Amino acid sequence: MIVGGGFGGLPATRALSSAHDRLEITLIDRHNYHLFQPLSYQVATGGLAPSEIAMPLRHVFRRQSSVTVLLGEVTGFDLEGRRVLFAGEQSAGGWLPYDELIVAAGSDYSYFGHDEWRDVALEVKSLDSALEVRGRILHAFEAAELEPGEQEGWLTFVVVGAGPTGVEMAGQIAELSRQTLPGEFRHIDPRQARVLLVETEHQPLSGFRAPLPRRAARALAQLGVELAVSHTVVGVDARGVELQDESGARQRVSARTVIWAAGVRASPLAAMLAEAVGGEVDRSGRLTVEADLTLPGHPEVSAIGDMVRVRDAKSGEPATLPGLAPVAMQQGRYVGRRLARRLPGQDRGAPFRYRDKGSLATIGRARAVADVRGLRFSGLPAWLAWLVIHIFYLIGFENRVVVMLRWSYSYLTRGRSSRLITEAAALPKATETPTRARQTASVR
Amino acid sequence: MIVGGGFGGLPATRALSSAHDRLEITLIDRHNYHLFQPLSYQVATGGLAPSEIAMPLRHVFRRQSSVTVLLGEVTGFDLEGRRVLFAGEQSAGGWLPYDELIVAAGSDYSYFGHDEWRDVALEVKSLDSALEVRGRILHAFEAAELEPGEQEGWLTFVVVGAGPTGVEMAGQIAELSRQTLPGEFRHIDPRQARVLLVETEHQPLSGFRAPLPRRAARALAQLGVELAVSHTVVGVDARGVELQDESGARQRVSARTVIWAAGVRASPLAAMLAEAVGGEVDRSGRLTVEADLTLPGHPEVSAIGDMVRVRDAKSGEPATLPGLAPVAMQQGRYVGRRLARRLPGQDRGAPFRYRDKGSLATIGRARAVADVRGLRFSGLPAWLAWLVIHIFYLIGFENRVVVMLRWSYSYLTRGRSSRLITEAAALPKATETPTRARQTASVR
Repeated sequence: MIVGGGFGGLPATRALSSAHDRLEITLIDRHNYHLFQPLSYQVATGGLAPSEIAMPLRHVFRRQSSVTVLLGEVTGFDLEGRRVLFAGEQSAGGWLPYDELIVAAGSDYSYFGHDEWRDVALEVKSLDSALEVRGRILHAFEAAELEPGEQEGWLTFVVVGAGPTGVEMAGQIAELSRQTLPGEFRHIDPRQARVLLVETEHQPLSGFRAPLPRRAARALAQLGVELAVSHTVVGVDARGVELQDESGARQRVSARTVIWAAGVRASPLAAMLAEAVGGEVDRSGRLTVEADLTLPGHPEVSAIGDMVRVRDAKSGEPATLPGLAPVAMQQGRYVGRRLARRLPGQDRGAPFRYRDKGSLATIGRARAVADVRGLRFSGLPAWLAWLVIHIFYLIGFENRVVVMLRWSYSYLTRGRSSRLITEAAALPKATETPTRARQTASVR
Repeated sequence: MIVGGGFGGLPATRALSSAHDRLEITLIDRHNYHLFQPLSYQVATGGLAPSEIAMPLRHVFRRQSSVTVLLGEVTGFDLEGRRVLFAGEQSAGGWLPYDELIVAAGSDYSYFGHDEWRDVALEVKSLDSALEVRGRILHAFEAAELEPGEQEGWLTFVVVGAGPTGVEMAGQIAELSRQTLPGEFRHIDPRQARVLLVETEHQPLSGFRAPLPRRAARALAQLGVELAVSHTVVGVDARGVELQDESGARQRVSARTVIWAAGVRASPLAAMLAEAVGGEVDRSGRLTVEADLTLPGHPEVSAIGDMVRVRDAKSGEPATLPGLAPVAMQQGRYVGRRLARRLPGQDRGAPFRYRDKGSLATIGRARAVADVRGLRFSGLPAWLAWLVIHIFYLIGFENRVVVMLRWSYSYLTRGRSSRLITEAAALPKATETPTRARQTASVR
C-alpha cells in the first residue's frame, strides 16, 4: 500500500509494479492526479494550464493491472494490526489491510503557526490553490482598473519567502505585469505594480552557494521585484502585511494579494506515525526514519519525501535532506526496488543515499541560477538547463510536446493564454465584505 | 457601450473598433474571457482544457486602445437618461452613460420553471459549470469504484434535452466510459455505464431535417447511448430523475449525475429592456426588436443574439432565429457596421438578414450530422466538416494550433488529458449528506 501519489509515491508504485505483476498494489491519493509541483507556480500566473502539469493517476497506471488507485484520505494507522484508516470521497471508508506500507504524504506550509493567515495568503503548491492565486492576481488588476482610490493595495503583490518557489513566483508576477498585461488596461499601467519579496534571511535562495544568491538578487531587481531581505512577516490580513526588520522596527505594507512560500510543515501523517512508534517529530513536523527509510521497529513500513528526516547509517544522527522532488523520487525508487527485491526473502540491501545532481531555480524568462555537479552558473545557460531538465522530467506527461510548444510560443509572444478567472478563484470573503460595504460608484 | 463579450458582443466590438479608432467603446462582461461556447461540453468531459476554448477579453482588444473592457454586471437600464447600472467585481459600480448601446447578454437554461433543479442538474454552457460537470462525472466513476452497493446510481448519467448540446454531451460521456476509462478501474467496468438521453420530442436533433435526426439516433445507439424520446423530465433530485411518457406513465431512474441541456431562457436583461419600452417577452423571455435589431422607439439601443426575436421587415411579425453562434455573430457584425456607418449621419441601411450557412452537430469521434447549403450528410464527412469549421472559427484563439494538435493526439490515443478533479468540482451538498451519514466501510 502506498499513501500519496506525488514525487515519492509515484516512483515507488512504478518500481513495484514493474518488478512484479503478481503483487496487489494499492495507491491512495486525495487527488485524482499526479501534480508536477515545481511548475504549479506557472498555473498561478496563467502561463500553463492545469492539465499541462497534472496527470490522472489512473491513466498513469492503466496498464498495470496490479495497481488499484483509491481516491481518498488516510486518517489513521494501526501498525500492529497492519492496516490504515481510509476515508473515501463518498461514504466509502474503513480499515484497509496491508503487508507492506509506504507513506509519502509530503508537506504543506506552516504559516509560522498562524493558521488564520492561510485564507488570505495562499500558497501555490497545490493545484487548487494555484488556480485560486491565478484568479486573485488577475482580479487584483481588474479591481485596480475599476477603483482608482484603491490602486495601491490592488497593485501591490507580496510574496513571503525567497526560496525557489517564492523567487519564481515573484519573477512571474513581475513578468506578468511588465510584459504580458501592458496595453490591456485603460485606467492603470500594470507596469506600476509593486512586487515585494519578503525573506527572513539576508539573501534570496539562501540554500544555494555563493555567488548564486547575489546573482538571483540582481536578476530579481532587473525584473522589477523589490527584495525585502532580513524582514519577517508578523501580520497578515486582507488589506496587507506587517513586516519586522532585524532591529525590531515594524512597518505596514498595503497589499490585497499575498502569496505564501515560506515555512514548510510535514503532513500530519508524520506525527501519527511517530506517535505510533513512540518517536518524535522535529520543529517542521518531520518524522525520523532509519537509514533504509523504514520506521524504527517496523521494517514493513517506510516513509519518504519531505515528511521525514533520515538517520545516518554510521553516526545514527537524523539528517534533513532538501525538500526537493529529486530526493522524494530517489527515495521512492529506492523503497520500491528494495521491497521488490526483498519479497523472495532476501536481505534489505544498502541504506538509502541521496545523489545530489544539483539545484536550479528560475527567476524569469532567460533568468535562472544553477549549481549542477559543482558547477555554478546563471543567466540564459542556467535557464536553458532548467528548461531541458523540467521538460525531461515531465515524463509520463503525454502532452510534453504541447507544453513545449506552448512555452516556446509564450516565450516568443510573452502571452499567457491561461489567464482565466474561473469560479474556484472567487475572492475570499474577508476582502469582499469591507469593500462591498462602501458602495461607491467609482467607475470613470 | 456593448453589454456581453460573447458571440454577439465580440464581433460588434470588433466591427466598431476597426471602423473608427476615435470612438470610445466600453465592453462589459461578467467574465474576463470570451468563451467558445459550442465546445464547452468538451471541457465537461476532459477533452479540452478551459484555456483552449476561452480567451481573455483584454487580450483580444489589447491593440484597440479605443476599447475599454470592464469586468462586472449590468443590472439596470435608464433608456431616457442613456445610461446603464453597472456593478463591478469589487465596490466599483454606478451609472455609466452611453451614446449608443448594444445588449448581447445571451441566454441561460430554464429548467422548466424548476429552479431548484439547477443545483443538481448542471448545464455545460458556462465554463464554470462545465468544469463542475467534469468533476462530477469523474467523481461518479471514483465513487462507483469505492461503493459497490451504489454502482447503479453512480454509473447512470442522464442528459436532459437532445438538441445539439445534449447529443454532443451524451456522446462524449459514452466515449469517455467506453473508450477512455476502460482499464483504469479495478472494481468496476466503466463500459457498463448507462448514458440516458431524454427528449420530449419524438426524435433527437428535432431542429434538423430528415433523415438527419434518424441518423443521429443510430449513431447514438452505436455509441451506447440509450435514447428516451417522447419523455419529459418531471422530477430531479440528487439521487435521480423522474420521467413521464406521453401516456402520462411515470418512472424513476436512479442517477447521481444529471446534465441539463433543455429549455433555453433569455437573459433577464431582455425583460428589463422590454419593460422599459412597454413591450413584452415571449415564453422563453426573449425581447422583440425591430428589423434593424434596434429597440422600438430607441434607435440608439440594439439587442442581439438569442435574447431577442426579430420583427420581419415586411410582415412585421416577430420571428425566432435559431439560438446559434452564427446568428449572434452575424447580428453583432451587422450592428457594429451599421453604427460605424451611421456615425457621420447617414441612413440606417438595410434590415438584418440571417444567412443560414447550415447546421452541424457532432455525436462522437467521426460521427456527426450536417445540413450545409441544402446538402444533408452524416458520418465521417460531416464530422470532418464540423472539425474544420470549428477550428476555423476559433479565430482569435492564438492556441488554435495547440487545440488542433491536442485533438489529433486525443483522436489517435482516445485519451483525455484534462481529466482533473479540481476544487470547483466538489460534489453538491445535496448528495453528500445522505451518503456520508451512512458511514459504511465498503472498500474491497
